[in-house]
Order: sequence, then structure tokens, then C-alpha cells
Amino acid sequence: MQRTQFGELACSIARTLDVIGEPWSPLILRDVWVGIRRFDAIQADLGISRKVLTERLKWLVEQGILGRQEYSHRPPRSEYVLTAKGAELCSLLMVMVAWGDRWTAGDAGPPVLYRHHDCGHVSHPELHCSHCDRPMNAGNIDILPGPGAAA
Amino acid sequence: MQRTQFGELACSIARTLDVIGEPWSPLILRDVWVGIRRFDAIQADLGISRKVLTERLKWLVEQGILGRQEYSHRPPRSEYVLTAKGAELCSLLMVMVAWGDRWTAGDAGPPVLYRHHDCGHVSHPELHCSHCDRPMNAGNIDILPGPGAAA
Repeated sequence: MQRTQFGELACSIARTLDVIGEPWSPLILRDVWVGIRRFDAIQADLGISRKVLTERLKWLVEQGILGRQEYSHRPPRSEYVLTAKGAELCSLLMVMVAWGDRWTAGDAGPPVLYRHHDCGHVSHPELHCSHCDRPMNAGNIDILPGPGAAA
Repeated sequence: MQRTQFGELACSIARTLDVIGEPWSPLILRDVWVGIRRFDAIQADLGISRKVLTERLKWLVEQGILGRQEYSHRPPRSEYVLTAKGAELCSLLMVMVAWGDRWTAGDAGPPVLYRHHDCGHVSHPELHCSHCDRPMNAGNIDILPGPGAAA
């Protein structure tokens, strides 16, 4: 199975892709994040087949990205909610959006905007160093082997 | 073609996935980023078929993520380099790594570490607001329709 092959690489990119590495999973995650939490609503929003959606939701729950929360006892009905692991993955979606807005939105401009609660301004996320708080990007780092590197 | 379908959604996540939405593309991008730039070297590093690698490299060049740079005239040989668009996409990989390190690395710890040039410390990227510089995440923003939202 392709999934296992990627997850076994000593690489956090490959392992993350192992969880969300096909287009539907990030879009399902996006839907739950913005409040589209029920099977039928997600299915209608994405135009995804019920079979594929069932599989992807099961996978995302197994991976601890989404949880189920009952909203009706009779009949029993549940909706999907983000776990802490899933909520942090939404930060990845935000960076995906920042890149997509910049390079793929074209003349129409960004499909959505983010308003930051702290300052009240529409803005976008930038990467800062967890140690010194200054900007961090692929051009101002060295990449070193970590403790989990393959022998 | 599934690719077109995603790219046509008024959603920067879907459009970004349209460019890198299958596991090989981000891993090829990672290889070029860390200096594995020649066809044979990428092929050996990823264990990917030559056919698939040829297709994915062609796609990434067409999308303006990678460029080709000749390193030998006779015989003519070229290697792949990041464009500005591709280099910014590596920021997305860095956030992917931060999430993967936190949630998928297990007891072995992170496969790689980043040392930030500005401060010299091993650290990881965090998201900060482009307006006020304070931390930004999926839990402290409102999502508003943007100019490019579908009618």
C-alpha cells in the first residue's frame, strides 16, 4: 500500500503526506474547520462520492485528526470535530492558503481572507523562528540530521 | 482530469493541492531544496519510477515551481533548481515538517533539525500575523469571503 511506504520514510514531510497526502483529506479537514461537520453537508460541499468520503473520514478519525461528536440521540447522529492534532494541521492549511493566494489566485484575488483576533486586521501567516521570533524561511536555515534520521 | 477539478474550486487550498496534491511532488520539491537536483539522483533517492518522475518534473517545471539549469554542455545535461515560487512553497514543507515532527516522529524524534541563520539555534517555524507579528493559528482568526470568492 502506497500509504505505508511513505509513512516509513524517516521524513516528516513523507509522514505528514501519509496522513493527508491526497487532495480530499485536506479539503475535508478544511470543511470541518469552517463548520461543515456533517457527512451529508461535507458530501454536498465537496461533490465527493459517499464511498470515498466514508473511507477518508474513517482514515482521519483513525489517525486522530478528527473526532466524532453525537448531536442527536434518537436517531443517533454524529458530526465531525477537530482534535488538537487536527487543529494544528489547520495551520498547515493556512500556509497552503497564503501560498495559493500569492501564486494561484490570479486577478480575482484571494477566495477568503483571515482576520486576526489579536489585532483585528486582515492578514496572513508568516513563519517566524520559535527561538528568536525573527522571520524564518527555506532560505535562512541549515538542515541538520536529527535524532530520528535513518542510520 | 481530477487535477483541473480541484484547481477550479475558488479555494487556495484546492489550488495549491492542484500543484502539489500527490505525495511525490512535495518529496521531489524537498529533494531539489536539499540539493538533490539531478534526475538520476532524485530517482535513486525516492525510489520512484523513471516514468512517474519524468511526468512529475515536467509538471513542476510547467507550473513554474522548478526550473532547469544546464551543468554540462557536452553532453547536454541539466539539473533542477527552485524558482521563487518553488522556494516559497518550501515554507509549506517546513510547516509540514513541524507538524510531522510533533505528531508523527514518535520516540525516535525528528528526522531533521533546522538551524536558523539569524540566531544560530535549532528551532522550528511558528505562524505569526503579517500585521501585528503576534502568533496566529486556526483558532484565533475569523475567515471572511475574499474578492476571489465564488459568486
